[in-house]
Amino acid sequence: MLKPLGNRVLLEVQKVEETTASGLVLPDSAKEKPQTAKVIAVGEGRVLDNGQRAAVDVSVGDEVVFEKYAGSEVKYDGTEYLVVKDTDIIAIVE
Amino acid sequence: MLKPLGNRVLLEVQKVEETTASGLVLPDSAKEKPQTAKVIAVGEGRVLDNGQRAAVDVSVGDEVVFEKYAGSEVKYDGTEYLVVKDTDIIAIVE
Amino acid sequence: MLKPLGNRVLLEVQKVEETTASGLVLPDSAKEKPQTAKVIAVGEGRVLDNGQRAAVDVSVGDEVVFEKYAGSEVKYDGTEYLVVKDTDIIAIVE
Amino acid sequence: MLKPLGNRVLLEVQKVEETTASGLVLPDSAKEKPQTAKVIAVGEGRVLDNGQRAAVDVSVGDEVVFEKYAGSEVKYDGTEYLVVKDTDIIAIVE
Amino acid sequence: MLKPLGNRVLLEVQKVEETTASGLVLPDSAKEKPQTAKVIAVGEGRVLDNGQRAAVDVSVGDEVVFEKYAGSEVKYDGTEYLVVKDTDIIAIVE
Amino acid sequence: MLKPLGNRVLLEVQKVEETTASGLVLPDSAKEKPQTAKVIAVGEGRVLDNGQRAAVDVSVGDEVVFEKYAGSEVKYDGTEYLVVKDTDIIAIVE
Amino acid sequence: MLKPLGNRVLLEVQKVEETTASGLVLPDSAKEKPQTAKVIAVGEGRVLDNGQRAAVDVSVGDEVVFEKYAGSEVKYDGTEYLVVKDTDIIAIVE
Repeated sequence: MLKPLGNRVLLEVQKVEETTASGLVLPDSAKEKPQTAKVIAVGEGRVLDNGQRAAVDVSVGDEVVFEKYAGSEVKYDGTEYLVVKDTDIIAIVE
Repeated sequence: MLKPLGNRVLLEVQKVEETTASGLVLPDSAKEKPQTAKVIAVGEGRVLDNGQRAAVDVSVGDEVVFEKYAGSEVKYDGTEYLVVKDTDIIAIVE
Repeated sequence: MLKPLGNRVLLEVQKVEETTASGLVLPDSAKEKPQTAKVIAVGEGRVLDNGQRAAVDVSVGDEVVFEKYAGSEVKYDGTEYLVVKDTDIIAIVE
Repeated sequence: MLKPLGNRVLLEVQKVEETTASGLVLPDSAKEKPQTAKVIAVGEGRVLDNGQRAAVDVSVGDEVVFEKYAGSEVKYDGTEYLVVKDTDIIAIVE
Repeated sequence: MLKPLGNRVLLEVQKVEETTASGLVLPDSAKEKPQTAKVIAVGEGRVLDNGQRAAVDVSVGDEVVFEKYAGSEVKYDGTEYLVVKDTDIIAIVE
Repeated sequence: MLKPLGNRVLLEVQKVEETTASGLVLPDSAKEKPQTAKVIAVGEGRVLDNGQRAAVDVSVGDEVVFEKYAGSEVKYDGTEYLVVKDTDIIAIVE
Repeated sequence: MLKPLGNRVLLEVQKVEETTASGLVLPDSAKEKPQTAKVIAVGEGRVLDNGQRAAVDVSVGDEVVFEKYAGSEVKYDGTEYLVVKDTDIIAIVE
């Protein structure tokens, strides 16, 4: 599995419908980019100037909303993941 | 519900009239962007370099004025919210 | 009333003559932007990295000179205010 | 009088000859901008991250050399002043 | 051997196929840039403002995913290496 | 004399030949800008975030090499000086 | 000799062949810029915010790899040197 470093969080973005109600297959750019994802793994947090770590505020299994266009897409074992920094996570869906 | 992270604040922006006095429906760009909103949820505050958190200066229920164009729009359960950083909140309306 | 946050200061900018000596009404861009204002309300100050607050150096009632073009204009209860950061205030008129 | 805030310094810039030796009146852009000024008032210094203030290194009455184009021009009681940050003062003339 | 400095990490990037299934030799720009690499050597970490070092979160032998286009390519003893900062390493493949 | 402030250093730049070996007078842009200078005066150093001063690493009389184009030219008492920040001084010539 | 200041390091860059195997003299831009150099002198390190110095991680005599285009070229006593900051040194060749 992938273990994110520092204040990074590994997300599995929720699938987006690739076919419209009328059955039309949408090209990539026509799909609205999803903004919610499930947290798969969490880094240990960034190192503060006093040497301590600032724990990341989300936990594995959380559903989160994140800033559009944030992070790096990573493919692992056939699944597409998104790795974002914790500062790019806007809110937890409770 | 949405729980904002760090120094983020979840706002419900006040509705803007979509119809002028004369009954004319306004297109999106013709409406003046509202600047006041109600605080729905508040993050725990950003982590300082000494490891402490700086509490956010607004509370749930406050009516606030915020910087135009700040924040990210998030739709949840049919309602549009705005998530801004506490530094983008200018003042509390008392 | 409006309560400014952090190191923000609420200012009431002094009226500028909208008519020249000869009685000519000036369009907006021809008026010299005023630089002095009266302090209406003061935030509690920004949070330092050690968790303390740095108090704002001006008090309610002070007449101040501020950097041109600084701050956000806010309309409240029919009055136009300007909210600036304390670092945008140049001097107090004593 | 004007009391500068933080690490700001109020300067009275020395008059520049507006007439050349031959009696020609110079337009504004032809005059060489003066770089020396007399210190009229001094702020209390900027607040450091430990909450202390870093005192400003110049005193009232000092003649100083400052960075060209630094600061804000402020007119007060018929006199033109320049308010610069202490970091824009290059040297004291002793 | 090369000993990376500070928070730098020496990586050996995994070979990319230069021939397609049909035997076609690919020009350089047509190959998808690999994102995984093996850690060959690790620096001692960057110096924090309190004088301590923040240890690098990866170890020799780790397989890592790194930000595309990060780092400097270095040729040593006939082998091409990539030297990246630890902040450019996204995750460890476990 | 001029007393530089903070981490500034007052330099007297060494004269550059204005005539080539063949006696040709060089126009200003054709002369190679000198990079070495003599230290005339030294500021007390910049104030650190803990309130202490970081002493400047050069002394009066040192011959130094400095970054091209750094600093401000100041004319005083008929002599042209250059005031640079200590971070723009590359090395001392010993 | 030259004594570099702060976190600067004085390097002697290794000579690059100016003639190809076929004897062709190469113009300057056709030569591949060397990336390895020998450390000639080392500064005392930059001053941290707590007033201490962070020692430079290389020693006189080390062979180092450095970021392309980093540093300032300095000619001294007929020899061309390069002065780089320690953060521009990628690795030591051991």
